[in-house]
Amino acid sequence: MAIKSSLPKVVCIGGGTGTFVALKGLKQHPLDLTAIVSMADSGGSNKRIRDEFGLLPTSDIRQCFVALSDENGSAGLMRKLFMYRFEKGTGIAGMTFGNLYFAALSDILGSQAEAIRQTRKVLRIKGKVIPVSYTDTNLSARYEDGSIVTEEHLIDEPSHDGTIKIQDVFLSPKADASPEAIEAIRHADLIVLGPGDLYTSLIPNLLVDGIPQALERTRATIVYILNLMTKYGQTYQYSASDHMRALSRFIGTSIDAVIVNTGKIPVRALKVYAKSHEVPVNDDLIDKNPYRVYRTSLVGDTIMTKSKSDALVRSLIRHDSGKLAKLLLSLL
Amino acid sequence: MAIKSSLPKVVCIGGGTGTFVALKGLKQHPLDLTAIVSMADSGGSNKRIRDEFGLLPTSDIRQCFVALSDENGSAGLMRKLFMYRFEKGTGIAGMTFGNLYFAALSDILGSQAEAIRQTRKVLRIKGKVIPVSYTDTNLSARYEDGSIVTEEHLIDEPSHDGTIKIQDVFLSPKADASPEAIEAIRHADLIVLGPGDLYTSLIPNLLVDGIPQALERTRATIVYILNLMTKYGQTYQYSASDHMRALSRFIGTSIDAVIVNTGKIPVRALKVYAKSHEVPVNDDLIDKNPYRVYRTSLVGDTIMTKSKSDALVRSLIRHDSGKLAKLLLSLL
Repeated sequence: MAIKSSLPKVVCIGGGTGTFVALKGLKQHPLDLTAIVSMADSGGSNKRIRDEFGLLPTSDIRQCFVALSDENGSAGLMRKLFMYRFEKGTGIAGMTFGNLYFAALSDILGSQAEAIRQTRKVLRIKGKVIPVSYTDTNLSARYEDGSIVTEEHLIDEPSHDGTIKIQDVFLSPKADASPEAIEAIRHADLIVLGPGDLYTSLIPNLLVDGIPQALERTRATIVYILNLMTKYGQTYQYSASDHMRALSRFIGTSIDAVIVNTGKIPVRALKVYAKSHEVPVNDDLIDKNPYRVYRTSLVGDTIMTKSKSDALVRSLIRHDSGKLAKLLLSLL
Repeated sequence: MAIKSSLPKVVCIGGGTGTFVALKGLKQHPLDLTAIVSMADSGGSNKRIRDEFGLLPTSDIRQCFVALSDENGSAGLMRKLFMYRFEKGTGIAGMTFGNLYFAALSDILGSQAEAIRQTRKVLRIKGKVIPVSYTDTNLSARYEDGSIVTEEHLIDEPSHDGTIKIQDVFLSPKADASPEAIEAIRHADLIVLGPGDLYTSLIPNLLVDGIPQALERTRATIVYILNLMTKYGQTYQYSASDHMRALSRFIGTSIDAVIVNTGKIPVRALKVYAKSHEVPVNDDLIDKNPYRVYRTSLVGDTIMTKSKSDALVRSLIRHDSGKLAKLLLSLL
């Protein structure tokens, strides 16, 4: 008989750096923690995992495992390996250790799902990491100029004009939610959406059949953590309400609360972002909304420098894990 | 302050399948167990580790880790991974997971020595695995026809006439023993040489500067486990005394005891070996020797079938781990 945990059940939905930050803060607290992770990655190491090994991409999964893993002892060593990307070796340079690990273990255990499940033990993670879907699918975006771009990494790092707005995103083929993801949403007390790239990290989860339905039915409080900055090619010039409108297309009025940062972004960071036409998200949320709005300073102290083996390369600034976790706990 | 173990100290010197078998039996007993491992491998995955990553070969190390590792829980999972060889992926197929693991961890920790040391924790091994040397070196053999073949795997799997006898083997450049290896030999109670390929697994250890000297000085009983079968290209038509003579060239009269199998090799196995001109080693040891001779049946029940992810692919029959360990313990 399974013993049910009496700890509050918190489920983070996302996959990228933002989810990493949220999980890292939350794991410091006594919680029953689950990460539901997008499986639509397609860049670099993931592309090879898909094309050559016939597996689902595991970069986001890998990042969540790192966030929740024990940092000491043998698990700490494996944690470092999971953050490692090979720089040498013909055909090996550019691959992440984590992706090769999952490729090997999936072959040994006969399924990628089982490999992901058993990795809990290897990294002694606090909580669970669950793929949102096991369907082999690809993300596409349709832009306001009628063009369509397929594959997550081409949307994430656009070679086209990034001021052109995304009109729609979709998965092809249609993906079905993993039963574990549905189950986790069903039993959650608090569900955390984001932070993270709106169209390439968060929404790909909401495009999976069964997820919006589960979010509608759950008794959990659903909170959305608004990004600190806009993102060129995805949310160029998006205000807070633009973000909310984009989300409502996929999950209607399921969101109960929004967390908005009020802290100032350091000038040094602003200058770097400005080069990519990225600015702090303008808070234009009015008081009359079907959701509560929590406004507080959440900017982390650290300006992230780019380092190749760091799981946090993509973000120059980030939310403060500790402050974010405390605010989230207050919603329980 | 380090607490000294009061368990009997047993050191196995070798590296290949034979050492794997000896360790597997010995680890069932309360012993302070150390494997000293040849670092002169050069084939396949090892070659790439050397050429492309600038590291020492780790296949034998890997095999010893597997032999001594915990078979349960997360260590058991890592154990399976350590036995895994990739079959897919351009530039990845043919590589062992273990070699890629060591390449990544060596880069992360800044040294291969440290990576090997810390792997103890990951696989929860019983005992220690120590490289005989950290010198980047290559094995060469000079044959009775005057020809010289360089690189371990070309000696091990000869493309030349394997009936031509090896006259000498040497390392170039000269290799120095690792301090840990010297230390282990110095404090040992029992030192086990072999079983295993004479010229490519066992003797490469004895060619390392400092090892023969340490073997001469140690107070430990030194026992040599004679191979069950001759090996084409290495010990073609070698009798037991031929093996002893070959060893004495490198370590003089250091050997205190020899273990000789008296059990019959199954006919089915004999037929397979006969195709490679390999036969049971003829026991021509006379009574008057500077070493004791232990004769007993040590043939394992299992005829090993070749399986690609099995650490024991190279051997059709092997010593019985359990019987071998019991006999070795009786020498303490």
